[in-house]
Amino acid sequence: MKRLERWMPILGWGRGYDAGTLSADLLAAVIVTIMLIPQSLAYAMLAGLPPETGLYASVLPLVAFALFGSSRTLAVGPVAVVSLMTASAVAPVVAAGIADAVTAAVTLAALSGVMLVAMGLLRLGFLANFLSHPVISGFITASGLLIAAGQLRHILGVPGGGATLPAILAGLARQLGQVNPWTLAVGAGALGFLYLARRSAKRWLIAAGLNARSADMIARAAPILAIAATILIARALDLGARGVALVGEIPSGLPVPRLPDLSPELVAALAPAAFLISIVGFVESVSVAQTLAARRRERIVPDQELIGLGAANLAAAVSSGYPVTGGFARSVVNFDAGARTQAAGVFTALGIALAALFLTPLLSHLPQATLAATIILAVLSLVDFPAIARTWRYSRPDFAAMLGTILVTLAVGVEQGVTTGVALSLGLHLWRSSRPHSAIVGQVPGTEHYRNIDRHEVITHPEILSLRVDESLYFANARFLEDRIAELVAERPGLRHVVLMCPAINDIDASALESLQEINRRLADAGIRFHLSEVKGPVMDRLQRSDFLDHLTGRVFLSQHAADCALRAAVEPCAEDQPAAQKLP
Amino acid sequence: MKRLERWMPILGWGRGYDAGTLSADLLAAVIVTIMLIPQSLAYAMLAGLPPETGLYASVLPLVAFALFGSSRTLAVGPVAVVSLMTASAVAPVVAAGIADAVTAAVTLAALSGVMLVAMGLLRLGFLANFLSHPVISGFITASGLLIAAGQLRHILGVPGGGATLPAILAGLARQLGQVNPWTLAVGAGALGFLYLARRSAKRWLIAAGLNARSADMIARAAPILAIAATILIARALDLGARGVALVGEIPSGLPVPRLPDLSPELVAALAPAAFLISIVGFVESVSVAQTLAARRRERIVPDQELIGLGAANLAAAVSSGYPVTGGFARSVVNFDAGARTQAAGVFTALGIALAALFLTPLLSHLPQATLAATIILAVLSLVDFPAIARTWRYSRPDFAAMLGTILVTLAVGVEQGVTTGVALSLGLHLWRSSRPHSAIVGQVPGTEHYRNIDRHEVITHPEILSLRVDESLYFANARFLEDRIAELVAERPGLRHVVLMCPAINDIDASALESLQEINRRLADAGIRFHLSEVKGPVMDRLQRSDFLDHLTGRVFLSQHAADCALRAAVEPCAEDQPAAQKLP
Repeated sequence: MKRLERWMPILGWGRGYDAGTLSADLLAAVIVTIMLIPQSLAYAMLAGLPPETGLYASVLPLVAFALFGSSRTLAVGPVAVVSLMTASAVAPVVAAGIADAVTAAVTLAALSGVMLVAMGLLRLGFLANFLSHPVISGFITASGLLIAAGQLRHILGVPGGGATLPAILAGLARQLGQVNPWTLAVGAGALGFLYLARRSAKRWLIAAGLNARSADMIARAAPILAIAATILIARALDLGARGVALVGEIPSGLPVPRLPDLSPELVAALAPAAFLISIVGFVESVSVAQTLAARRRERIVPDQELIGLGAANLAAAVSSGYPVTGGFARSVVNFDAGARTQAAGVFTALGIALAALFLTPLLSHLPQATLAATIILAVLSLVDFPAIARTWRYSRPDFAAMLGTILVTLAVGVEQGVTTGVALSLGLHLWRSSRPHSAIVGQVPGTEHYRNIDRHEVITHPEILSLRVDESLYFANARFLEDRIAELVAERPGLRHVVLMCPAINDIDASALESLQEINRRLADAGIRFHLSEVKGPVMDRLQRSDFLDHLTGRVFLSQHAADCALRAAVEPCAEDQPAAQKLP
Repeated sequence: MKRLERWMPILGWGRGYDAGTLSADLLAAVIVTIMLIPQSLAYAMLAGLPPETGLYASVLPLVAFALFGSSRTLAVGPVAVVSLMTASAVAPVVAAGIADAVTAAVTLAALSGVMLVAMGLLRLGFLANFLSHPVISGFITASGLLIAAGQLRHILGVPGGGATLPAILAGLARQLGQVNPWTLAVGAGALGFLYLARRSAKRWLIAAGLNARSADMIARAAPILAIAATILIARALDLGARGVALVGEIPSGLPVPRLPDLSPELVAALAPAAFLISIVGFVESVSVAQTLAARRRERIVPDQELIGLGAANLAAAVSSGYPVTGGFARSVVNFDAGARTQAAGVFTALGIALAALFLTPLLSHLPQATLAATIILAVLSLVDFPAIARTWRYSRPDFAAMLGTILVTLAVGVEQGVTTGVALSLGLHLWRSSRPHSAIVGQVPGTEHYRNIDRHEVITHPEILSLRVDESLYFANARFLEDRIAELVAERPGLRHVVLMCPAINDIDASALESLQEINRRLADAGIRFHLSEVKGPVMDRLQRSDFLDHLTGRVFLSQHAADCALRAAVEPCAEDQPAAQKLP
């Protein structure tokens, strides 16, 4: 039972479910539903899909996540960044005539679902570590800018175009003469209203006598008010006839479940994007989920979150939706509104299903400019310029990875942006760890301590070189050691012994072992013996599984002092000569 | 002058050049030339190019490397693995009709040359660290098997075909009925002769009175003997008319310098392969060069080797050659024959140029089977099965990377094999470092020492959790810490303080900083204070460049004991209460 509960967390929280929890979850669900309806429509438009796709992606996926997710309060559904990534993945497939947009989006969700579930079952959640914080932060900032710029055409009522920031801005500049004044009025009005609502509505409502929580919840319903108002205005003034783009007829009802198109050509075209969407969505979800869980001292299981998100995407795939993930804003609203369990997600799904069944006829007069305004306000809160300055101050390599991600995302594309960021952070990490800190050490006079010759007055001997490396040895820095020792030996014609001091070496991988063997061989060719000192227990165990110690021309000493004494013994008497040398079989 | 000498090492060794060095270099050059003629022809055939291409790739590139390379004894030219990679890169370009094989090979050399020079100038030699030893070793073993299998068709005299090991073997099995007995006789004869020469010739020659070095040098000339003998046999028996594939007419003379075709389509198609060829060639060259330099306590400069190899490839590109790199066997021969400076390479180039001018008419009756036998004998020495077992014993993750590389190289292709290997070693490294060693610590009674609670009898307190992490914190393990602390906190309802003990943390990157901030925030939400202890100086300096310490709910303690005392003070009197706590601005 415990085991099954691990895979389906609902079996755990479902048993203790009571009336108090039910009413808390129901209230949260109502509030999230009101927030999710405009977002679903808007993000579907951002993804280049018909508006109902957004609603469909907010029904079954929520139920699937409630069954399999471990986070109690994460609210899943269409989100801005993943919608942008969907648009960018779907566009070339449509252009190449491989599939239509809806088919491609559904297949993308299916692929992403399969990948997420597989990663969860294989416990590959650590793959998300490839995305460093500066890369994610830079990517989200750049995506926010890209999305906001892309939506401006809906506010201006021009055709727009372009997929990169320069192209979008150039397109808008060329089309400024074609601006539709009615569209601009609606769009600018909605933008202004939403901006004021976000900035001041809560304060005004509190001043009007509401308590802080209610005021916050009502303020968050501003988009639905904007939608209702602009629908009424569009009907009253017949804005459709005046060139204002409206959402148009949305089919009522729920999608008929169907299997996604998994033709090899389509799968091959979408697989890389699906992988990036999975990783980006997972990283964002887990970070939100963990923050919320910690507030109530609950736990989430990252590998189980993968399965939950995977199930949600598979559900999106069979119900004509598109890729979903956990949303930051809506999860916070869900949490603050008092949601206690995943049941709140199920109730939200019911709310959206009711909207899909009964509200869609009302939406045909909704101006697209209103949705664009909703998107712009939502994504501009994702843009975090101060983070760029913070990263610059804290770490130049991290800043380089962040800047690379931002520039490539804006100027080339979202997939290229993420991969550039990953490549940069890996490359910079490798570059940094390819030059570990190392020091030539000598004896502090009168003690058994050995310190860096550059920082202390220490005793050394021309025939003995003692080198300390302050990092584990692995493939990225294995060659550094070869180079460093080769260089030091070439400078010291009288050298007869090299001692590698290993107190900070926690691990030696197969590449580093080969390098040590190579160093040993090369030193032997030059008539120099190679010794180790202060090797940690687990590292020594490992070395004994290889034949390195059989071929080692020198010895393994328990302490650097023992090494120094033994090697200097031939030259001068050592104060405390002791039988501390240890030669292993 | 010193500066210029860094870029053109010839200015250094050229000045001290004297008659003794000249005669040593000349002798080595003669021996390497004799070895290089058959290899050049054979590897060009392996690369799917006309035989003269191999000769051309052994003239100008050697001069270029002599001018710019820092290794004194590395012998560059066509090598087996790079020839296989060239064949694999050129084939799809030819099949797609983008360019003919020679044009593609020349462009490949040009791209590889540009990349190598750029990497050298930008000091990007560390990129070669991406290729771990097990991956390189597995790749070379797999390449050796693939090459040997691919050459069998020349020994059997069948058309052959296929680019993967299963395809090659299946093709040979189907064509067994078409074996040409004359070809098989020549091929098997050459194979047997070369095998005996390699295994026993040196011993026999020593027994016949030669000294070891001369015996070794003569034994290494066996391929040229095999070539001469089979040419004579082929002429005498008119083997060409009996269906034995001959090399045919080779144009005499040297290539007219010309610029490679750098059309965008061709460049785009070949760039990834050029990059892999550059990296693999560089790793192999540097490892050979370093081994040889160490024997004489000389030094090579890896970034300068990049420039040398890049210059060699650019020279190959303008002289109708194909990608070259340093060869293991011929460099050892060059070294053992007494080469002292890069001038030996220039003399070798002269030797090959003379061969291209005057020997080619003699080669038209050379059976391809002889060249195939040369290749098979050469590459089988690259196959290193014991290394697989050694890696298995030493490290399972390294073994996994090696096996993945071998299987993908054999079953899919060489480029995919290398990239799989790189991806696997990076992934496994990330996986390992995503779970750094950490321990909950407690006080060893009566001391100021704090140790792992799982290994020692120590004192802990239910309101205080002290966690020690034994690794630097960076993006790969940042989330581990978040998860681990979330987990520990969820299990301990009474917890009020978390202390992160940092004596082993050498660095905290921006991702890890974000994670610490997140942990601090989440713990604050749960009413728990977060403290640090034993933070190293450079890490502390860095943290002070961020606002982390301003928001830290707890304190930074100089020692774990100070932390423990201060935090327990409220609960019970501490033996040695001291003003050791340190709160930073």
